Amino acid sequence: MTDTAYDPDNIFAKILRGEIPAHRVYEDADTLAFMDVMPQGPGHTLVIPKAPARGLLDADPASLAALAASVQRVARAVKAAFEADGLTVFQFNEAAGGQTVFHLHVHVVPRFDGVPLQRHEGGMADPTVLAGHAERIRAALEV
Amino acid sequence: MTDTAYDPDNIFAKILRGEIPAHRVYEDADTLAFMDVMPQGPGHTLVIPKAPARGLLDADPASLAALAASVQRVARAVKAAFEADGLTVFQFNEAAGGQTVFHLHVHVVPRFDGVPLQRHEGGMADPTVLAGHAERIRAALEV
Repeated sequence: MTDTAYDPDNIFAKILRGEIPAHRVYEDADTLAFMDVMPQGPGHTLVIPKAPARGLLDADPASLAALAASVQRVARAVKAAFEADGLTVFQFNEAAGGQTVFHLHVHVVPRFDGVPLQRHEGGMADPTVLAGHAERIRAALEV
Repeated sequence: MTDTAYDPDNIFAKILRGEIPAHRVYEDADTLAFMDVMPQGPGHTLVIPKAPARGLLDADPASLAALAASVQRVARAVKAAFEADGLTVFQFNEAAGGQTVFHLHVHVVPRFDGVPLQRHEGGMADPTVLAGHAERIRAALEV
């Protein structure tokens, strides 16, 4: 169902293999969550399956179910950690759908009354700030 | 984890009970999919769990897993039916997160190269057009 094959050299595959760093907030047997380095707002977190999948359409059903469970778990922690008023969840498929990294991922963005989303292309966040945000979310996951 | 309780008189609960009509495209024991009446593009489809949940955070894990499976199934059909280049998936929680109907729902929007999303508030779609779109998606589900 996908337009092209999975590329094992995409950036999230490299994060999964530990070849490049990420501000990790949650990991289990099937999924990993880490901070988006180009956040659309403070606390913008990504949740990905470990199994290779280009997007929603080619994901293995078991992997997709595990991803959904982790998205819920991480979303609760992100909302609590940032005392957010709401959450916006995005999942983009193919360039036309907004996808820029071709490993299935779900965006979890804390939202606040009256505050619009920042653009995803707004720039790289300060790594120190991201490290602090990741720590807040990890603490909320342990509650 | 939710801000307020589930309201059983929300519009999607009424659709589930058959009290108001919808252009249905898919139904199973746990989920229902139907056309968004204020589409952000042709083929904009909503997938909801039958179990009451205000949003992502308060959904029962089994219901959430079933929802994820139906989103994938419907997304494949929507992409095929509209020969889309991609898909954008949204899920909004609380007003700050973009939510307007307080029953958990996932937006599946076909996307086309170079065509921006329409605003959700762009107006009600022609029911005849929606009926035709629903038929196309149902046909794609049967392939």
